[in-house]
This record gives sequence, C-alpha cells and structure tokens, in this order.
Amino acid sequence: MTSPTEKPVKKVVLAYSGGLDTSIILKWLQTEYNAEVVTFTADLGQGEELEPARKKAELLGIKPENIYIEDLREEFVRDFVFPMFRANTVYEGQYLLGTSIARPLIAKKQIEIARKVGADAVCHGATGKGNDQVRFELGYYGLEPDIRVIAPWREWDFASRESLLAFAEQHQIPIAKDKRGDAPFSVDANLLHSSSEGKVLEDPAVEAPEFVYQRTISPEAAPDKAEVFTIDFEKGDPVAINGEALSPAALLTKLNQLGHDNGVGRLDLVENRFVGMKSRGVYETPGGTILLAAHRGIESITLDRGAMHLKDELMPKYASLVYNGFWFSPEREMLQAAIDYSQAKVTGRVTVKLYKGNVTVIGRESPYSLYDQDLVTFEEGKVAYDHRDAAGFIKLNALRLRVAAKRDARDAK
Amino acid sequence: MTSPTEKPVKKVVLAYSGGLDTSIILKWLQTEYNAEVVTFTADLGQGEELEPARKKAELLGIKPENIYIEDLREEFVRDFVFPMFRANTVYEGQYLLGTSIARPLIAKKQIEIARKVGADAVCHGATGKGNDQVRFELGYYGLEPDIRVIAPWREWDFASRESLLAFAEQHQIPIAKDKRGDAPFSVDANLLHSSSEGKVLEDPAVEAPEFVYQRTISPEAAPDKAEVFTIDFEKGDPVAINGEALSPAALLTKLNQLGHDNGVGRLDLVENRFVGMKSRGVYETPGGTILLAAHRGIESITLDRGAMHLKDELMPKYASLVYNGFWFSPEREMLQAAIDYSQAKVTGRVTVKLYKGNVTVIGRESPYSLYDQDLVTFEEGKVAYDHRDAAGFIKLNALRLRVAAKRDARDAK
Amino acid sequence: MTSPTEKPVKKVVLAYSGGLDTSIILKWLQTEYNAEVVTFTADLGQGEELEPARKKAELLGIKPENIYIEDLREEFVRDFVFPMFRANTVYEGQYLLGTSIARPLIAKKQIEIARKVGADAVCHGATGKGNDQVRFELGYYGLEPDIRVIAPWREWDFASRESLLAFAEQHQIPIAKDKRGDAPFSVDANLLHSSSEGKVLEDPAVEAPEFVYQRTISPEAAPDKAEVFTIDFEKGDPVAINGEALSPAALLTKLNQLGHDNGVGRLDLVENRFVGMKSRGVYETPGGTILLAAHRGIESITLDRGAMHLKDELMPKYASLVYNGFWFSPEREMLQAAIDYSQAKVTGRVTVKLYKGNVTVIGRESPYSLYDQDLVTFEEGKVAYDHRDAAGFIKLNALRLRVAAKRDARDAK
Amino acid sequence: MTSPTEKPVKKVVLAYSGGLDTSIILKWLQTEYNAEVVTFTADLGQGEELEPARKKAELLGIKPENIYIEDLREEFVRDFVFPMFRANTVYEGQYLLGTSIARPLIAKKQIEIARKVGADAVCHGATGKGNDQVRFELGYYGLEPDIRVIAPWREWDFASRESLLAFAEQHQIPIAKDKRGDAPFSVDANLLHSSSEGKVLEDPAVEAPEFVYQRTISPEAAPDKAEVFTIDFEKGDPVAINGEALSPAALLTKLNQLGHDNGVGRLDLVENRFVGMKSRGVYETPGGTILLAAHRGIESITLDRGAMHLKDELMPKYASLVYNGFWFSPEREMLQAAIDYSQAKVTGRVTVKLYKGNVTVIGRESPYSLYDQDLVTFEEGKVAYDHRDAAGFIKLNALRLRVAAKRDARDAK
Repeated sequence: MTSPTEKPVKKVVLAYSGGLDTSIILKWLQTEYNAEVVTFTADLGQGEELEPARKKAELLGIKPENIYIEDLREEFVRDFVFPMFRANTVYEGQYLLGTSIARPLIAKKQIEIARKVGADAVCHGATGKGNDQVRFELGYYGLEPDIRVIAPWREWDFASRESLLAFAEQHQIPIAKDKRGDAPFSVDANLLHSSSEGKVLEDPAVEAPEFVYQRTISPEAAPDKAEVFTIDFEKGDPVAINGEALSPAALLTKLNQLGHDNGVGRLDLVENRFVGMKSRGVYETPGGTILLAAHRGIESITLDRGAMHLKDELMPKYASLVYNGFWFSPEREMLQAAIDYSQAKVTGRVTVKLYKGNVTVIGRESPYSLYDQDLVTFEEGKVAYDHRDAAGFIKLNALRLRVAAKRDARDAK
Repeated sequence: MTSPTEKPVKKVVLAYSGGLDTSIILKWLQTEYNAEVVTFTADLGQGEELEPARKKAELLGIKPENIYIEDLREEFVRDFVFPMFRANTVYEGQYLLGTSIARPLIAKKQIEIARKVGADAVCHGATGKGNDQVRFELGYYGLEPDIRVIAPWREWDFASRESLLAFAEQHQIPIAKDKRGDAPFSVDANLLHSSSEGKVLEDPAVEAPEFVYQRTISPEAAPDKAEVFTIDFEKGDPVAINGEALSPAALLTKLNQLGHDNGVGRLDLVENRFVGMKSRGVYETPGGTILLAAHRGIESITLDRGAMHLKDELMPKYASLVYNGFWFSPEREMLQAAIDYSQAKVTGRVTVKLYKGNVTVIGRESPYSLYDQDLVTFEEGKVAYDHRDAAGFIKLNALRLRVAAKRDARDAK
Repeated sequence: MTSPTEKPVKKVVLAYSGGLDTSIILKWLQTEYNAEVVTFTADLGQGEELEPARKKAELLGIKPENIYIEDLREEFVRDFVFPMFRANTVYEGQYLLGTSIARPLIAKKQIEIARKVGADAVCHGATGKGNDQVRFELGYYGLEPDIRVIAPWREWDFASRESLLAFAEQHQIPIAKDKRGDAPFSVDANLLHSSSEGKVLEDPAVEAPEFVYQRTISPEAAPDKAEVFTIDFEKGDPVAINGEALSPAALLTKLNQLGHDNGVGRLDLVENRFVGMKSRGVYETPGGTILLAAHRGIESITLDRGAMHLKDELMPKYASLVYNGFWFSPEREMLQAAIDYSQAKVTGRVTVKLYKGNVTVIGRESPYSLYDQDLVTFEEGKVAYDHRDAAGFIKLNALRLRVAAKRDARDAK
Repeated sequence: MTSPTEKPVKKVVLAYSGGLDTSIILKWLQTEYNAEVVTFTADLGQGEELEPARKKAELLGIKPENIYIEDLREEFVRDFVFPMFRANTVYEGQYLLGTSIARPLIAKKQIEIARKVGADAVCHGATGKGNDQVRFELGYYGLEPDIRVIAPWREWDFASRESLLAFAEQHQIPIAKDKRGDAPFSVDANLLHSSSEGKVLEDPAVEAPEFVYQRTISPEAAPDKAEVFTIDFEKGDPVAINGEALSPAALLTKLNQLGHDNGVGRLDLVENRFVGMKSRGVYETPGGTILLAAHRGIESITLDRGAMHLKDELMPKYASLVYNGFWFSPEREMLQAAIDYSQAKVTGRVTVKLYKGNVTVIGRESPYSLYDQDLVTFEEGKVAYDHRDAAGFIKLNALRLRVAAKRDARDAK
C-alpha cells in the first residue's frame, strides 16, 4: 500500500470485469485491505455477458447488494462518443480514442456508486505503465476530490504472472485454462472499438498478425461488392441509417456491423502515451471510422469555413485532453461548448460507400446546405459574385507582402 | 482592362499551357494590350508534351527567344511538395493541396523570366471565381511588388463560351474538336495530383462519375493481391523505394504508379475556397496519399511527442496558408522553420501495403528510433520506469481538478 | 457609383454623426442617388450631444420620422464591451479594440432600422483605407446578406478637401470655422475609448503631442496620491465599484473618470490594419485599462489553470476577429461560447490602486477562490500534497526527454 | 533516500549558493549519502559576492578542486533571456518568467561539471512544492538521461525549521542571526528579476508590503521627471542604449538601473504552478519590463502582420514551456526556430520614456521599417493603394457570411 500512514479503507468500489485479473484484485482488496468490496460491472458494448461477472462476484463472497451491474451503452455513445465525434477527433492524426473515451464514464459511475453506498475508496485494474490509470484517476479526483484511490498494479508485490496465479489458486479463484500462459497480446473493447497491444505487437517493424483482429474482417476477406447506405445527422449527431431512426447505441452497433463486414476501421499505430513512452497498438473502430468520414461529409456542406477551420485548429488539443484523461476538466468543457455551438445546423444526409476497407462519402445533402444551388449560382439580386471583387480582394491581401518585398529589395541594394 | 489610367504594358510573361484558353489569352494580350508576349510553359508532371506548346506559340507569332519551356519536376517535388509533406499537411481534414502547391512555383518562374527579359507584366489563365488567381498573384506580388498583373478572365468582355470561340476563330487559333462543346468538368494536373471540378460534379449529392478519374483505377478494378514495398526517409523526406535511391520527382512518379495501380488516392470533397464559396472537387493524389501515411509512420517512431503534437497543432494553419496562396509569406516560412527543425532525425524505413484503395503502414524501423528495444525495456541503469512514479504523476496532474472539485462541492452546499 | 448596372437606391439608412463629413454624405446621397435618407445617430458614449444632430438632419431636409436617435450605451457595454473583456482581449499585445467593438453594434442598428423603414441600402462614413469600412460592411452583410451598401469615400469623385467643402457650401451645409482647414488628426470616440490618428501622428519616430489626448490627463499631471478602490465581479463582468452596484454603462463611465483622473490608459501604437498597411494611432482607454487588469486579477484566484491557459491561447485569434470586423461570425461566437463557459465562477472582489498612470491589483478575494486557505494548507484528509508525488510527476514528464537524449547520445557516438 | 535499492552515490554536483539551506544540503549529502560533493556556484546577477561561497564550501570540507564558481551573466542574458524576449514572452498574461529562465542554465552547467569530474549525481535545493524542482530536473534529465538526481527537500526527514537548524549546529554550519527565525518571505534573484513569495504574501487579498521589494523603488518614490533614452535592436536583440553598444549583461544591468530608479517593473500576481496549485508572488523585473515594451515597439514597425500574429498565437505555449521547465525540449526549440526566423529585420531604434512606474514607447525608427514614408504614401508606381480595392476585399470576405445569413433567413421562415 502506498502509505502506511493512510487511514484504513472500509469500503471500496471496484471496476470489475469478472475476468481473472480483476477477480484477483477483488480478493487482494479483501485480504490486504480487509475492505468490504463493492463490484461495478458495466456493459459498454465490449461484447461479453454480464451475468457471469455477477456469479463470479458472488462466488468470491460479494454480497448481492454490493454487486452493481449496469448497461451503459446508450449513455456511453450519447454523452461521450458522439460529443467527441462532433469535434472530428483523432489523436496523433489517426487514433479514434476508443479506449480513452470509455474511462471517464466508468470513473463517473464508480464515484456515483461510492457516494450511494458510502464507500471511501475506488479501485481499478489498469497497469502502472499505461494511460488508463491516469484516465480513471483523473476522473475519480475530478468528481470526488477526497476519494481514496487504490491502484493494485502499482501497489502489490506480485513480481510475476506466476505469483499472481499462485495467489489466485490460493484463494480459489477459477482460472480458465487459456489464462494459464501469458496472453499473446492484451485487449480492451467497448462499443466504439477494440484495441490490442503487447507481446506479438511489440516490434513495430513487424506486421500485426491477422489473429489480433477481432472486430473486423480483413479488406481481403470482405465482399467484392460495395455497400452503399445513408446516414442522417441532426445537429452533428447521427440519428438514422437508411432513413431508419436508431438510438445512439443501436446506430453505432449497426455501423460496427457494416464496418466489420467490409473490412473497415483497422489501424496499426505507434503512439505516444501520456506517461511518456511510445507504444504500439492495433485498433479496430469500424463504426467510428465510418462516422468520422460521414460527419466530415455533412459538415462539408453545412458548416461555415471559419467555424470549420477553428474546429480543425482546436481539435488536436481536444484530442490530447481526451487521450490524457482530462474529460472532466474545464478546458475540455470549454472546447466542447465551442464545438457544440458550431453544430446547430450540421443536419442532413450523407451517402456512404464501403468497399474492402475503404469508406467513401459519395453524396451529401441538407436543408441547411451552404452549397445550395440558389446560392452558388450567384444570380443578380441574390448573393452576387462579381469577378472584379477578386481583384480588390487579392490586392489588399497582397499589400503587406508587397510592402515587405519592397523593403527587402531596398535592403538588398 | 481594369484601369484606363494605368500605363500601357510593353512586355508580358504569360503562363502558357499551349491549350485553347491560354492561346486565346495570348492573342488577346497581343490585340488588346498590344504587348509583346513571352510564353512560359512548365513541366510540372502534368503528363503532357511540352513541344506542342512551343509550336503553337510560334504559330501564334511568339518569337523563339520569347518562348520559355522548363522542366520543373525536380524543383517542384524537392522544394514545394516535400516541405509541405514534412508537415503532414491536409486542408479541411482531407485535401492534400495538389493544385495549391504548384502555383507558387509557376509564379516564381514567371517573375524570374520577367526580370530576365525586362517584362513589366505577368499574366495567368485562372478564372475569377477560384483560388488559383489568388495563389498566382500573391506569389507575383510577394516576389516582385511592382509587377503589373493581368488576369484576363476578370478583365475581358467575353460573355460566353461562344464569344471566346469566335475570337479564337477570328485569330486563327486552332480549336480541337472536343473543345467545341463545354467540357463536362475542368481539370488541373501536376506530378502530385489531378483535380476535377465543375459541371457533372456540381451537385454534391450525386456521386462523381467514374469517368472523371484520370490518375487512378478504382479500388474495384485494382488487383486482388496486395502490393508491399518499403520507403526510406531521410530527415523527413522520402529518398528510396525498396532500397533504390530515387530523385524526388522519380520517387513521386514511382509512388504515383504504385498508387494508380492499386486504386489509391481518390478524394471526393466539398471544400471552402479562400474567395468565399464552397466548391466540390474530385482529387486524385496516389503518390501523395501513400507519402502522407508513410511519413506519419516514420515520424511515429522517430519524433518526440512534444514535437509531434506541436506539429499537429500548427498544421491546420500551415495548410490554410498554402491553400490560400501564402507560400511566400513570413508566417509560412516561420512555420516551415519550426517543422524542418523537427525533422532532423525523421530517418528510417517504412513498410507500406497497398490493397484496393487502402494504404497501410505495416512496419517502421529507424536507427533513430525512440521506440528502441533497449529503451522500452527500462532495465535498471537505463531509462528506468518505476510504476510508483505514475502515482505522483497522476496526483499532481489531478491537483487543480481536485481543488476545483472541492470548491464546487463547497458552493453546492 | 460602383456599378451603373445596379438598381437605383430608394431609401438608405445613414450612420449619421451630425458632423460635417456625414452631413456632406447625407446631401450627396440625396443628390447623387436621389434617395430618401434615414439618419441614425447613436449615443455610444462619445461625449457629444445628440439633439444638434437631429436639428442638422432636419435642416438638411430629413423628415422627422426618418430621424433615428438612440442611446445605446448600456447595450454597447453589456453586450459588446463586457463579453470582449471576458476574453482579456488585446490586439497585437496592446490595443484594447475600442473602435473595433463599436462598429458591429452600429451596423446592427442600421440593419434593424432598414428593415423597419423598408430601406434597401445602408451607408457609412468610413474611409477607403481603414478598418472601419470592413467592420461596418461585414456587419451589414452578415446580418442582411442582400442589403445594398454605399461607401461614399470609395465612390465619390471629390479629389480634395477643397472640393468637399465646395460641395458643402453649394448645398448650404454649415461649416464650423475650425473645420475649414485640415484637422491635425482625426478622432473616434465612444464609452470605451477615444482614438486619434493621422497628420501630426504620422511619423512613428516622433512622440505624440500632448494635445491629441482627450480622455486622460497625463501621468505627470495626475495627483501625487494614489486612488484605491474595489471592483466586484459576477461571472466575469464587473458589477460594482466600492460596493456600489452600477449598470454596465454607469460602471464603465465611473472607471473612465477614475482612469482619467489618474493618467491611466494611454497607448501610442503602430498597428497592422486588416486592409494591409501599418498605421499609427494614439488610444485612450482609461476604464478599459483598469478593467483588463482587474479582470485578470479576479480570474487569477477563481479560474482553473487549464481554463486560463486555453483562454490565453485563444485570445489572439479572438482579438483578430474583433479587430477585423468578424463580430457576427460563427467562429467569434464559438470562441465566445468557450470563454463564457469559463466565467461561471469568476466572481469576487478586486482591489485596485491607481497612481499616475499605473494600475495595480493589490488584492483579490472570492467566495469561489481556488486559492482558499483551506485548500492550500493541504492538511491530511483534505487535498493532500505529498512532496514525494513531485518525484513521480517529474520522472514521467522527463521520460520522453530522457529517451530522446539517450537516442541522441547514441547517435553522437 | 527515495529508494534503498538504488546504487550508492559517489560524487554529486550541488547547485550551491553559499547560503544556509544549501550548506545544510552539502553537509547532508556528505553524511547521508557519504558522497564526495562538488559545489557549483554561479553568478547569474543575483547581486551577491561569490567568494564567500567558496570560503564556506572550503570550511565545510570541500576540496578546492571541487569548488566551481562561474560568472554566467553574459551567457544567461545572451542565450536564455534574449531568445525568450524575442517571443514577447509573458506567462498568464503578466509574468516575465525571471526565475524560470535561469534554471535550465544552472542545470546545464551542473551536467557539464558532472561530466568533467565524473560525478554520478546532481543535487539542487528547490523545495518539493514548487516549480523549480521540475525545471532543474527536466534540464538534468534532458541533457544527461541517466544522471542520478537528488532532491533533498523531497527526501530528508527534517520535519521543521528547528530540526534543520539543529542539524546545522550539529555540523558546525554557521547560522546568520537573521536566519534563526523564519524568514517573512523567500527570495530568488538573478540579473533578470527578483521574486518574493510566501508568508507575508500568502493572503492574496492583502497588499504586498513595501519591504518585500528589493529591485525597484516605488513609483511614488521615483523622480518627478521622466527619463527618456533610446534602445537599439539588431535582429530582435537589444544592443545599445543611447547609442552606446553594450554586451547583453551590461545592457540588461543598465536597463535594470533605469527601471529601478523610475519605479518600473513591479508585479503582484497569483499564478498557477505546474505542480498544480496557485501561488502568490511579487516579481520585480525592471529591465525586462522595459525590454518587453521596447521590443514590441521595434517589432511594430519592422515585423510583418502575419509574422506578428503567428508569434502572438504561439507565445502562450512558448511561455508555458519555459515556465514548466521544458527549455531543453524539441517543441521549445521548434518554436524558437520559428520565432528567430521572424527576427531577421527586427532592427532599429526605439525611444523609451520612463516615469514613475510607466514605460512608454514614444518613438520607433528603422532602416527596415515597413512603415516607411515612401511606402505608405502609395503613390503611383510604388505600392499603390486603390480605395476601390477595398470594396472587393470586403465583398469576398463577406461572402461566406452572406451565404450563411441567407441560409439562416431561409430556415427562419
């Protein structure tokens, strides 16, 4: 434990997946901290059943009233994924932030449960070398500043996988056979993406093996025929596919399927972690990849140039804030206020074509188009465009350059 | 002419393609301005023979010593395209600026020739509604502040295509049969890209027809087998393919072929012009699309996080400056100085895979890698990573959020 | 007139000060355009009576129902000046934008009147070399895209001051004796500032003469004793002085007096105009200078670091937008949304000391302070600060630098 | 000591002031680490004799060859202060970064000495709550990634001032009488500034008492007569006062004297520390305050608008990097490259007036002026300015606003 002077922990809310690692943490909290453990298991669309987690928690001695299981898929997509996509967010030019965006929601729910059950601590299972510990804990602290945070991977003395497994056996924690050996890579998944990293991916010079991919078939395996469909947007958020209105989570699920089937959304990346080192990851974000392209498509006809360029300038900072775990920070919220303001008329329909890994926007239309036929024609009496205006426009834009060029020519003499 | 009070033009350097439109301009300069015309025809890799332009100029009465023809491909790629790609430049999130980046070089050459031949004016064939007039003229003025600029499309009185053709016939300008009617779209091309816009592309809701594409086959038409090759970089610029050293233009030509063959580099976009309206264009940038991905790939292991994030934050402004025609401006040069500084160790090899429109970086290696095995292992005595450091890192990053959360909780009471 | 092909103007709303120049414009609109003129005269705190403007308009034949006079002081300060000060806005590091911020309001009112009276045009008296023409017209067009804009100084043929005066005499426009000769400098004034430029100020190497200053006494002439008072803020806006609640305009008026009396708020500046040249101006912004310092003071204890730094990064762009006349633009409004979001708890009291030109914040306090004694003490159980956390914080912040340094050392061998 | 597993330290280079605190550290390194101590004492213009530090080091048992004393004033001003002022750097709108800019130089020198004497560790006397520990250590690590860093204030067990003094007495460290009690505030000083913080300054609502000021007399105490003088700049750096060429340090010393005598350069500020809390400091930067104003003055006539605005946008980030200790980082160096590029013609003379705390630029002239009389006149044949150009300039700048306004009007129906 970090500090012998700290007060004992009475009750702790654990982000619990039901897997081996968080089960070990659960038991370790009971034995080392002698604390009452409250488990929190969320459905974020990771594609796993939640009831087994309940059973396992009960098996490990958690009281039924201390087991919290929630389906957060709609909240996740509506309040976290969609706001982020309004900003066309990509980290380091490529990464769609699928892991980053889920952590603040889990942290928020843990804090809510901690308040409800009167817990004095929260606990997560992220390792000490990664970004997720930061994202969880900045979330905790930003919402409940005096909460005690337990990060077992930074605290305990298990020196190896073997000693962990020994602890598990000692405490009757079931170990699936395939968990005995080291996993060839580690995985995080939710409705937005799945990520893989470590082991077989560690050498960035070597191509990621096909077996790490879980959310998508390869472009090579995808159908030879393109899939074409429409996405409707309202105020920057997607609301329907092929005209069928869908809830946020249902819509993203549908896009994921479409992306999966057409080999869309794979990314093999070396990125810079907030904790300071570079790491290599493989990400699959099928629906998100489509959504980014489609959102840019609808913005292209509905968003003013000044607004779009400002968004593009703000985006890298926004992306870093999300990546680094500062979702619940004043500056992320300020940027969100600006971004959301811009989306009031980002409404309309985009036609998207998927083909073997490619996402192409092939059509966009909107009742709020700034590319309206009436407007671009520039007939007399409408917003007239006079060619001669361009001469003045250029002349005054050039003025400072001309003055400087004259200065420099003078100096050269 | 813009102003009757302006002095007569004696000699004018015309950016001359040899096509119908600039031939009409040539003749119009002779007849309306009564000026001696000097033609400048550049090979920027647009894929057209230059000698026909010489013959046509001669036919239109240009003296041989007034006909300038230059192969600018190496200069174009080395001094314009590559510096721009060091910045991972994309305009409005997508456009690789293939047209924008060529204009300053043409302007520069026209000014050089004007100085050599003692011309008092320069002339271009860009229309009055587009960006290119701005790019040409900001280039002219920034390099030669007192030069007289003639922009025929903003000046003359031809009210229709028909009157233009009548003028051509009247002056014995040959008209190719297929130029009689209106073109279904207009094209610009150079070694970096070709663009198409207008007419059949005017409705952004309608998919671009296949026949507008000229530089690439469609992903559907591309081979069923992926193409894998390596690109070597030195200080941010590509220098070899599959280990074979190539000059800048030869390298881009090779990448264009690879991209073309694999359906890579198509973009269908509605963009915001500097002159104020939205326009829809189809761009094909096969080699550039590969280059962008590969450059990001080599940067991902050789560039420091702080440098990369700063580059990402500066890029949208850099892209706007190039798009808007401010290549020869102090602020573009300042940004270039920062960007170039960052590239000192962006050296190494990237393995790229092309498959039916997809460009995937599947490997990166470098003698200057910041993802070196020795470094990430963090053994004792090297750059050690202590898990416990993360606790302090998080605590201090969280401090201001905690203080604010306590403040806000206090207020809520 | 700009274009002979344009339709005749029937009714035009003129921004009318009652002075000689706008009186000439009034008459010129009547004679040249044969248009019905509606005058609009606003009290923006420029310190001049408005009734003489009414009388003069009547004298020049304007029908009483076509004379609009409004006191806009409260709206000006509340909806334009204060929002701008929330951003701590300074242009080019120094200028408080006193002229720039008034133009959009005048433009807005002219458009409102034009709609009311069914006018088809608006007209302003700004010259063709300055920024104000841009600010007026971007305002007009942004609010009423099809409005006809008349800018007499860019249109008419008066070649000299003499020919203008001749026109005035010809049309029985009264000319004050001191307007016969050229003014030694020109002035703009409103409740936020007064500016002077031209003639005696044209050489930037020469000190501005004392007689150009109108709003402030010199520091040398100010009292030998400091003036100390408090300003209360609520959500980023000042609401009271020395505890006395004041309306926005009353508060700024009071600050102006305090500043005036203590020689506060003079600025002698060479700035870059949007139209492309440098110009030299002398600005006096007594109340605004105090307000900027005081606002920074209250923010210093109530605003989170991330919010403050984001504001500082956005400010130069915000300032350029205001300076260039883009008040009614999506990007200015987006930035405002972000800025306003940050001000929710910028509430409290600042103690300010004025002394012979100096403005010093000598105290700040707030119920929302983030520098609360309880918070900074960091006692156990509160937001504890553990010195050892700093070690980890530094280590991880240093990690990328260490890795790069090892790389570079390796290369050097 | 942070980690019992770490290797013993053999030789450590201590940043040694000769004062009580670093003398205690010296002795503590000898007794706790059993390490050979090398002292490094630098003259950065803090205004203290260095020889007493040598004597004290000898007294505490340091071998003469292990005592390093260097006059770094010229290097400090030339290579750190001046580059920073080229950027017009202010942190949080006000602070001139006097403490921040000195730390990297001290760190650099310690590392150089460590290499020379074969030391395996460096040590500084900064506390665990401040920014300076970060600045020192990021400097150490960025230059010598494997260096061992000892930060006594984070490591030792002294719980109070008393126990520190007891340790001092026990080891025969002389204690000046006035150091017995707690100091009423703590001070840092160098040629650029002196700072005071703590104790009597802790309540930000209470005015800083006059006795904390050390570098400046108060405006009230300053002469009743203004002081006027000139500063010459070359490529962005000041090189002469009143025409007399001075070395960097001599010039800053002279400006400090001028500022001191006229009550210039005081700042009372609540700022945000990198380690997460707000703190209140009083800074005196007499010469720097003059230099900032004068540099802006010379830039105002010699720097292009685009360059100036880009600098203004980059500055807040640059300031944060310096404040946070990232002087030796790629991103600070990238920004410096951009900034330095812009300064090529920032050459000329500024006339400055000081009066009771006020710094006013009253004149600027330059052979590279962009405000040259020849240029602004815009006579025919020079850089002509045609009023009618403004109409086109405005029209095209307004175009997107008009299109959006038409769209919005249409929606409203």
